[in-house]
Amino acid sequence: MDPSAPRQMHLGVFILGAGHHIAGWRMPDAAGTSEDLAMIARIARTAERGKFDLLFLADAVNTRPDMHPSMVLRLEPLTLLAALAMATQRIGLAATASTTYTEPYNLARYLGSIDHMSGGRCGWNIVTGAFADAALNFSRGQHPAHDERYAIAAEFVEVVKGLLDSCEDGIWQLDKRAGRFIDPARMHALNHEGKYFRVKGPLNMSRPPQGYPVMIQAGASEAGRDLAGQVAEIVYAVHQDIGAAREFSADLKRRARQFGRSPDHIKIMPGVSAIIGGTEAEAKAKLAELGECADPVVALQVLAERLGHDLSGFDLDAPVPELPPSGVMRGHAETLTALARRERLTLRQLRNVVAASMGHRLLVGTPEQIADGLQEWFEAGAADGFNVMPPWFPGPFDDFVEQVVPILQRRGLFRREYEGTTLREHLGLPRPAWRA
Amino acid sequence: MDPSAPRQMHLGVFILGAGHHIAGWRMPDAAGTSEDLAMIARIARTAERGKFDLLFLADAVNTRPDMHPSMVLRLEPLTLLAALAMATQRIGLAATASTTYTEPYNLARYLGSIDHMSGGRCGWNIVTGAFADAALNFSRGQHPAHDERYAIAAEFVEVVKGLLDSCEDGIWQLDKRAGRFIDPARMHALNHEGKYFRVKGPLNMSRPPQGYPVMIQAGASEAGRDLAGQVAEIVYAVHQDIGAAREFSADLKRRARQFGRSPDHIKIMPGVSAIIGGTEAEAKAKLAELGECADPVVALQVLAERLGHDLSGFDLDAPVPELPPSGVMRGHAETLTALARRERLTLRQLRNVVAASMGHRLLVGTPEQIADGLQEWFEAGAADGFNVMPPWFPGPFDDFVEQVVPILQRRGLFRREYEGTTLREHLGLPRPAWRA
Ligand SMILES: Cc1cc2nc3c(=O)[nH]c(=O)nc-3n(C[C@H](O)[C@H](O)[C@H](O)COP(=O)(O)O)c2cc1C
Ligand SMILES: Cc1cc2nc3c(=O)[nH]c(=O)nc-3n(C[C@H](O)[C@H](O)[C@H](O)COP(=O)(O)O)c2cc1C
Repeated sequence: MDPSAPRQMHLGVFILGAGHHIAGWRMPDAAGTSEDLAMIARIARTAERGKFDLLFLADAVNTRPDMHPSMVLRLEPLTLLAALAMATQRIGLAATASTTYTEPYNLARYLGSIDHMSGGRCGWNIVTGAFADAALNFSRGQHPAHDERYAIAAEFVEVVKGLLDSCEDGIWQLDKRAGRFIDPARMHALNHEGKYFRVKGPLNMSRPPQGYPVMIQAGASEAGRDLAGQVAEIVYAVHQDIGAAREFSADLKRRARQFGRSPDHIKIMPGVSAIIGGTEAEAKAKLAELGECADPVVALQVLAERLGHDLSGFDLDAPVPELPPSGVMRGHAETLTALARRERLTLRQLRNVVAASMGHRLLVGTPEQIADGLQEWFEAGAADGFNVMPPWFPGPFDDFVEQVVPILQRRGLFRREYEGTTLREHLGLPRPAWRA
Repeated sequence: MDPSAPRQMHLGVFILGAGHHIAGWRMPDAAGTSEDLAMIARIARTAERGKFDLLFLADAVNTRPDMHPSMVLRLEPLTLLAALAMATQRIGLAATASTTYTEPYNLARYLGSIDHMSGGRCGWNIVTGAFADAALNFSRGQHPAHDERYAIAAEFVEVVKGLLDSCEDGIWQLDKRAGRFIDPARMHALNHEGKYFRVKGPLNMSRPPQGYPVMIQAGASEAGRDLAGQVAEIVYAVHQDIGAAREFSADLKRRARQFGRSPDHIKIMPGVSAIIGGTEAEAKAKLAELGECADPVVALQVLAERLGHDLSGFDLDAPVPELPPSGVMRGHAETLTALARRERLTLRQLRNVVAASMGHRLLVGTPEQIADGLQEWFEAGAADGFNVMPPWFPGPFDDFVEQVVPILQRRGLFRREYEGTTLREHLGLPRPAWRA
């Protein structure tokens, strides 16, 4: 990238198949679910047409019938990402995978394979698991405590990196005459002996095109921010308030610097849910219609998950109760309770906010207004880019790509064409050097 | 399928990217490795053109530089299968995955997603892990003992089936007017509490098109055969001798009957490596050329793996030593030692056999001779089909599809067109009913 070029924003699309709004699936032209491969592949190709940096798949390893409609049933993200690698050419492909309920040797292989098969487009959203119920699906007595989950995660990431460095670049020889298939001197055991993992290696895979997948993190607690400062190249944030978002961004870039990293190599990408209309009134009417279609039981359940507290005992029409931060989803909990306090919301009102955006920033208006809202945060240092969360598919995302992206391009805020081929190149991140 | 139709054989292709012969990759037109997605996708499409029932990906979770060239470095099979689902339309897609080093909740999701994404074409080769070194990559002190691995595997398979039955068929409602997204009454917890696993469920995925992936097994020990009798729908066998193969087949069908299953629902598919020539002499010359190119160190290492014993202390020119069966790869060990005894082979000779076919049956000759060799075993009840193991790619497999398959078709031994769309349909296996 030309260093004198003006800074441009990065865009990702958060694919929740049935839409990010809890009632999105009920809209007349809504057509997808999180098990609908054809629709998801269509979204991926639309994002690629819009020159998005990446698409992003959330995940959880548990379910219940009253979960968010995009989460109750879904394709598994790693296998889905591999399929999407074949349906796209340039866009980055990021999946969420837990460091609490997978093995680093297995996950290194899945991610490494996706990176190989996609020609260097893989990203990994490192989560410790936002749902404590998951433990019961993995023969565990309980979900490890919050800070221990992060200690495990930090070691897990080191092991994955070490495994992906099992082979130096250039291991392939394929010299038929000499009978040299690989260069055995370039394959190395890892011999990791840590507190949580003992992994000898080597991994049975050559170094992927990107070295490591692009590392993504979305934790907002102290431990989460520290891990992000140390390893994250993208941070998914959840903010309603520009001031809080700027502080968050500055804090994470400071932490990255403390770990000896360039603040340019950690991209802060808050979530944004955009409701686009031909006029502002039309957009607002859409939002109101969505609100009327939202299932209140599911909405309260989603709020309870985000806050990490059972809410069934509280009065919906009283102010949002003060609840201590739980061990899950700190980013959402803090943003939502700050919002409730600032705007003196009742529980019912906060529930309706969550139904619409799960706590993320909601932009409602014309394509110009949406673009303004993105530009404002981008220029204020509150964001390096955005994680776009369409309320349903395919219409609103098509609208975003066809109506909002061209405005951003005209304003010089977003690329008109891909320049590189890997996700690292889209983001302006260097390929990490091989580490012994 | 028409029950009065003559019985037809089933064909799978065993994709070891650099070829099944240890020196296959050195042949002038050899072009693949096990990390070469484009080549593997080409093989898959060739197999589909040949109306193969399925393709099959082996796996291991360890490596070393002197492993078989197709095993030293490779793409991870589950993610690879997902990618191949997008590159093919009809062929079945089977991957090997370990019950010792994965979690049933994760694996159920990977397999279920592949089945969904491929429209019902997924198969799972259930292995307990043939390589004890794997333990060191998974924070384990050691590989569990042989029979315990099988006890874990049996419970693991039950859990995976139970998880895939979390949702009854018809869970999707998508009734926009009534606001009914799914039918919550059709989602069920598993509440499995066994000796090795405690898994509450439900799985966050609807029932896959095939119910369960087609279950494949390749163990040949008592415990392995019992598991196969209980759950396998395809058994990959390793036999050199038609009599032993018939006995093996009869034994497995008897075991299936003991578990209350139809012997027609367990398909015995021994491996066959075919070296095809315009004349028999030409084929033999190819085999000789391959033999000359084989790396003796790697070949001995592969033999040691298959026998489960370190062979470095033995004289290559003395008869093959009598070694007690080890806890790994019983099928290979028994077939190879029986062969060595029957034909009074030296260790060097047996090593060369393994270099060529890893112990599997080797057919060398014209397309007619290859077809004859398959027909003989098929009609004698030694096989329901074959797992074709091309010595390298792409040439020899193209030859198989273009020259051997038409002969089998003319003889009425193999389909000319796919009749169904799922792997179960190709194999004549029923879709399992949902179990509470
Ligand atoms: C935008 C965003 C997306 C997230 N996606 C997931 C997800 O898909 N799966 C998950 O288990 N947790 C997810 N999380 C939760 C965090 O990754 C993290 O595991 C959790 O918030 C606990 O960390 P914290 O206490 O540091 O916030 C997400 C959080 C945010 C802000
Ligand atoms: C044709 C064939 C293919 C096999 N493929 C694999 C494989 O890919 N990965 C693996 O770990 N074991 C593989 N095995 C080994 C068996 O599945 C089984 O795990 C091993 O033989 C130990 O079981 P046993 O003692 O019952 O034979 C294979 C065996 C055969 C015969």
